[in-house]
Amino acid sequence: MTPLAALDYASVIVFAISGALAASRAQLDLVGFAFVACLTAVGGGTLRDVLLNRDAVFWIADPAYIVIACLVAAVVFFTAHLFESRQKALMWADAVALSVAVAAGAGVALKLGQPPVIVALMGVATGCFGGLMRDVVCNEVPLVLKQGELYASAALAGALALLFASYIELPSIFEFIFCGILTFTLRAGSMIWGWSLPVYKSRPPKN
Amino acid sequence: MTPLAALDYASVIVFAISGALAASRAQLDLVGFAFVACLTAVGGGTLRDVLLNRDAVFWIADPAYIVIACLVAAVVFFTAHLFESRQKALMWADAVALSVAVAAGAGVALKLGQPPVIVALMGVATGCFGGLMRDVVCNEVPLVLKQGELYASAALAGALALLFASYIELPSIFEFIFCGILTFTLRAGSMIWGWSLPVYKSRPPKN
Amino acid sequence: MTPLAALDYASVIVFAISGALAASRAQLDLVGFAFVACLTAVGGGTLRDVLLNRDAVFWIADPAYIVIACLVAAVVFFTAHLFESRQKALMWADAVALSVAVAAGAGVALKLGQPPVIVALMGVATGCFGGLMRDVVCNEVPLVLKQGELYASAALAGALALLFASYIELPSIFEFIFCGILTFTLRAGSMIWGWSLPVYKSRPPKN
Repeated sequence: MTPLAALDYASVIVFAISGALAASRAQLDLVGFAFVACLTAVGGGTLRDVLLNRDAVFWIADPAYIVIACLVAAVVFFTAHLFESRQKALMWADAVALSVAVAAGAGVALKLGQPPVIVALMGVATGCFGGLMRDVVCNEVPLVLKQGELYASAALAGALALLFASYIELPSIFEFIFCGILTFTLRAGSMIWGWSLPVYKSRPPKN
Repeated sequence: MTPLAALDYASVIVFAISGALAASRAQLDLVGFAFVACLTAVGGGTLRDVLLNRDAVFWIADPAYIVIACLVAAVVFFTAHLFESRQKALMWADAVALSVAVAAGAGVALKLGQPPVIVALMGVATGCFGGLMRDVVCNEVPLVLKQGELYASAALAGALALLFASYIELPSIFEFIFCGILTFTLRAGSMIWGWSLPVYKSRPPKN
Repeated sequence: MTPLAALDYASVIVFAISGALAASRAQLDLVGFAFVACLTAVGGGTLRDVLLNRDAVFWIADPAYIVIACLVAAVVFFTAHLFESRQKALMWADAVALSVAVAAGAGVALKLGQPPVIVALMGVATGCFGGLMRDVVCNEVPLVLKQGELYASAALAGALALLFASYIELPSIFEFIFCGILTFTLRAGSMIWGWSLPVYKSRPPKN
């Protein structure tokens, strides 16, 4: 298995967990769990593959991804009640999945010889879209739009780290590691210690 | 006309009805009706064709689909007030459309030689996505996410029936019929008698 | 630069402004501004290019579009507080972007030799989808669905004007000008003087 395929597998598993946890909050049945888990798990990578015009979307080329997402959904269906807080579990699963998916997205774009701007954007889009679709479909406020949290910013920083590692010609496995660790550190720091960038504030008097 | 094209036509007509009824609930004008009707009518099939990398999306290859969806929207615009309950009419139109679209989606994937997992998923995705987009755009809770109803489950059962019929080598017209009838029966039973699968329940004490 | 590329640039800039203004209403940080601005700016054109199966999505073929959308987002981040009403500014930016994007969408479809129905639809879809995605993601009621306003209708009229200009064989620059001016006039008239088409009304007694 290539490192890129391993990243796709890891991101599918962790995103499927976060999707199934969102389904548990919406109190769906087993098939509903599988539906939201699959949507979340392959959403970002599908967007990447369609936009980059790859020969086939990754999960159509290898249906094992779908089987795995469904198995994960089934496991979560029977064990989600064990979590102290499913919302917290969802957010941590999402953070791990984001970190892995950014590396997977940017890595594929880099391998296809895209320019740096597209590599960075594909990293951010692959990372953010699965979760965005999960939240839009489940009618929750998208995590990517929560005020005062690093999310798209963490993804962008990770993608830039990958570009830098590639620029100084590190072996590609280190590109992925740097990207994933930086993204996860920033996202986790934001969740635990409230790290954030300054947000836009309207003038106090009006509006 | 091939059976697959006939299925696409039927699904476009019935989904367009459900989309136009949703537009009537949002009190849009005639062009708004046509917009939501087209979105709902071709949403699922478009997703299918883009994911499966077909030469052209079905309604670009044959614009008659769009003309039909617009005509349907116009008819509903002038007759929707005749329905006793537009919400109920919407749900039944959606149930019929779902049944037809699952057969259309799974049938195309099967004909392209996709493996069973992808055939089943394409059936579910083609069936569910038009209605999902209609509900997200019109800001209603997606039918596919209503608790305690068979929806994605009905679609999945229908797609599996189609796979089984194909496995025992029935003529393809029977594949479509079995798939459509099973999907519709399950969905209708859920709407009338409340058939459902057990849903996820959080522990009573907390969360 | 061809007129079609110029239209894409103009539409990216003005949609990016509207996206960044939506981000300011959601009080996001700088990267959040860039995210919503890019999504809004390239959403419609991306849909058009994927559906029409063009060799590459326009902003992947030329990443300058993304760079521009990010710069616009940064400028809005630091200047949005200068607007008297950001909601009003957003709606006018959206109106200009709609007018330009309809011309860009219909123009590309016409150049690819698509039949009139598809040209009209691509104009409407390219015009409406960027803003639709912005509003769905930011959890606002989509402008395209506001009751009693010309929006999809204005886009459709503009696309038909372009088709007419092409039919009487005017130079293509006039096609774009007629299309853009008609769309903008109808949209602006709707915003200022309340121009509208009759909307669907349910019967008074029940519903």
